[in-house]
Amino acid sequence: MRNRQILYVHRPEERLSVDDFELVEGAVGQPGPGQVLCRTILLSVDPANRAWMQGRTYRDQLAEGDVMAGFTLSEVVADNGTNIPVGSVVACAAGWQEYAVLHAREVSVVPVLGPLTHHVSALGITGLAAYFGLLRVGGVKGGETVLVSAAAGATGSVAGQIARLKGCRVVGIAGSDRKCRLLLDELGFDAAVDHRSAGFADDLRRACPDGVDVYFDNVGGATLDLALRLLKQHGRVVCCGAVSQYDTGDPASVEGVRGVPGLVVTKRLRLEGFIVSDFAGDWPVAVRDLAGWVASGDITVLEEVVEGLETAPQALVGLLAGDNIGKRMVRVGPDPV
Amino acid sequence: MRNRQILYVHRPEERLSVDDFELVEGAVGQPGPGQVLCRTILLSVDPANRAWMQGRTYRDQLAEGDVMAGFTLSEVVADNGTNIPVGSVVACAAGWQEYAVLHAREVSVVPVLGPLTHHVSALGITGLAAYFGLLRVGGVKGGETVLVSAAAGATGSVAGQIARLKGCRVVGIAGSDRKCRLLLDELGFDAAVDHRSAGFADDLRRACPDGVDVYFDNVGGATLDLALRLLKQHGRVVCCGAVSQYDTGDPASVEGVRGVPGLVVTKRLRLEGFIVSDFAGDWPVAVRDLAGWVASGDITVLEEVVEGLETAPQALVGLLAGDNIGKRMVRVGPDPV
Repeated sequence: MRNRQILYVHRPEERLSVDDFELVEGAVGQPGPGQVLCRTILLSVDPANRAWMQGRTYRDQLAEGDVMAGFTLSEVVADNGTNIPVGSVVACAAGWQEYAVLHAREVSVVPVLGPLTHHVSALGITGLAAYFGLLRVGGVKGGETVLVSAAAGATGSVAGQIARLKGCRVVGIAGSDRKCRLLLDELGFDAAVDHRSAGFADDLRRACPDGVDVYFDNVGGATLDLALRLLKQHGRVVCCGAVSQYDTGDPASVEGVRGVPGLVVTKRLRLEGFIVSDFAGDWPVAVRDLAGWVASGDITVLEEVVEGLETAPQALVGLLAGDNIGKRMVRVGPDPV
Repeated sequence: MRNRQILYVHRPEERLSVDDFELVEGAVGQPGPGQVLCRTILLSVDPANRAWMQGRTYRDQLAEGDVMAGFTLSEVVADNGTNIPVGSVVACAAGWQEYAVLHAREVSVVPVLGPLTHHVSALGITGLAAYFGLLRVGGVKGGETVLVSAAAGATGSVAGQIARLKGCRVVGIAGSDRKCRLLLDELGFDAAVDHRSAGFADDLRRACPDGVDVYFDNVGGATLDLALRLLKQHGRVVCCGAVSQYDTGDPASVEGVRGVPGLVVTKRLRLEGFIVSDFAGDWPVAVRDLAGWVASGDITVLEEVVEGLETAPQALVGLLAGDNIGKRMVRVGPDPV
């Protein structure tokens, strides 16, 4: 049995390119004691994939020659003395390959609710990031103004919709007129601003005439700087990602955020970072909430599924350029029968 | 009766100079209904005085021609239908002048504990900033490593000593070898690093071999950037001030902080700003705690009292260059009899 894999073979000097990857065929491993063999169903494509190339984050830096890392939804097809039934659907980080051997503790069984793709999107890592970021880190309350960047992206689109559900006024920032229309017409945002427009700063100011209580930040950089200026006293920034800064060969050259700490002091702001695994104990509750909102139609799920492991490099390169709408994922294999 | 006043007459193009001020003689006002006439005893000299020239902060921007603003300890010498007894010592913002008419709500009566100078230093705004910043915003716990910048300054020296009292390992950053020695020999810091030394970054890393839990930031800029790199996962930054960025004619040119939001996300940091008036309801408790620590010798009070209102401009210019040790204040008039 063959195991198609995509290796990360070249550290990009500047922006990531498909040539930084290589498709190879490896062996399918055998699970040792306490291990399972997983078959990849869906591979999540995330901006963080690029950040992992730049240095140590919450995981080790990727090394050239590694199987490219990535979050997956997989099926357990063999086990060796674990209590995970063969046939289980699990969330794990199996990487860009068709098969992976993982320790039982590295996979978590997914109680399937609806289509599997939802467990990569609204009920997956990005949906959970929106949920915990907005509700726990941001602590949003009804009536507040919530600003969301990368608002047509996987996390932003869910964060904005949860904020709307909670009775907030929601302003989205996205990278095209088409995305802005989608936010307004399909996701119920109160305002949407195109960050590629020449009048972006003024447009954003006009969209937030009374200031911003919570900024859900997926991008960092100049947009964060602008948002700091719009935040009210005691405003909060949910630091979820910094996608504007990932796709560079020289992270140290990234321009800094000028409003820190000046505006943080004078306006008594709070900036707080998080990753979803900090809230792992509460995932079941969050998934139940999210699934309920999806079922009731309160949350519209935006997904893009591209076909075949070999499309993953282009899917990631394009994602970093902002060509996705909603959650992008790669179908590596069929759903379990 | 004359009222010597110092006006802010010129917005500095670059660094503040004594020529940006002018000493004049004005009239002593008469308190209207609900007002008091205050005689200035001690004038607090604070880095924030410079920030007020740059734009709106938590107060309106200073305008050229204004009496220079400043926090004072004053004596009520006349009142008009208030319930504040003549002879009371009050904390207020009477500015750089010998007399000021203020509304009763603009002054707060100080229950005097020990020398009046302490009510400007350890028991004044800067001591309170150290107290609330470290304990409420930072939430320090025994055993943590606390890093303090401008550690020989008015706020930093108290913050570091409170951290030591709470059982933390305390590392101070200061601007001379003499200041560093003071931190080690007289204030009980565990380590001290000179930010003007060529090997500053390496020295700081060596002084914090296990990383930093809480960074009490008085300076912003490159030191904050460095501290972000040393913070542990879930580390906190208490954003108290940004003195490195105040003394410029062009605040927009200040270099940004590069670790935001990248390191904030990956290490799940929290940065939070505050000003002491946010905790006004709890000042009496804080003053009691601080006075107790001063009386027991647990906190050594560092003060510099310069004589005469006319010395205030040079006192502030020098403070911004870092030539002070501890709390700098100007004696404008004698203590009440």
